[in-house]
Amino acid sequence: MNNEAVSLFHAVGPSAAIIGRKPTLTNLKFNQMQRYGSVIGLNADKLEEYKLLHAAVWPEVLRMITRCNLRNYSIYLRQFDDGQHFLFSYFEYVGEDFAADMAVMAADPTTQRWWALCMPCQRPLVSRAQDEWWASMEEVFHCE
Amino acid sequence: MNNEAVSLFHAVGPSAAIIGRKPTLTNLKFNQMQRYGSVIGLNADKLEEYKLLHAAVWPEVLRMITRCNLRNYSIYLRQFDDGQHFLFSYFEYVGEDFAADMAVMAADPTTQRWWALCMPCQRPLVSRAQDEWWASMEEVFHCE
Repeated sequence: MNNEAVSLFHAVGPSAAIIGRKPTLTNLKFNQMQRYGSVIGLNADKLEEYKLLHAAVWPEVLRMITRCNLRNYSIYLRQFDDGQHFLFSYFEYVGEDFAADMAVMAADPTTQRWWALCMPCQRPLVSRAQDEWWASMEEVFHCE
Repeated sequence: MNNEAVSLFHAVGPSAAIIGRKPTLTNLKFNQMQRYGSVIGLNADKLEEYKLLHAAVWPEVLRMITRCNLRNYSIYLRQFDDGQHFLFSYFEYVGEDFAADMAVMAADPTTQRWWALCMPCQRPLVSRAQDEWWASMEEVFHCE
């Protein structure tokens, strides 16, 4: 895998902060924060490994998440009716250049080692955008 | 459908705030806030109807959401590789009795009329808990 080309989260190209990521009026008026919801499959034989990894995320990986301006970041797991497992992630981006921050994260050697453990657990959607790993979702509702 | 028995969100029984909803140490220490992630299918022929409804949610429904102590509530939509659409919801509960607050919401006539429009759009997971509509997900990671 090429960690320089594939963000853990989303497209790192210059249009990443624009495509499908319209800030709401609320965001623009108050704090420029942007919410991101994303989805990815999780391989059944990697369930426990993934949960164990995320029960004790490396401190340096957490520091990089914070340094790259991600906040209130949660990942949820559920088995669907077809037997497949999916992960949903929600986080808030409080920086000013999402693509640049994701590029910083992607260039971090510790984060790259972390992703090398996580990515084989995951099963990205075929329909994801070309430079996505987690597939972005469309926000259809928000209430503060 | 029986709106008194089925919460829009989650189980309204006395154990709703406990099952699969362990507050993290962070939450307990600082503010007792609890995060909820949930998933439900969305019927393909109801996509636009659901999006239009949620682009202009009735003010009284929004007020009830706030009154019942839900905050930072987002719903995301995505078509999966099998062609089916799913909604993911994320919200934060800041009250002290989730089951009681959900019962208040379920008893509100305006909210019931709103649900009567939304629920036919949705396709709940067969594997959801007996008293759920949206199926709860397991939080496997959180970073403030």
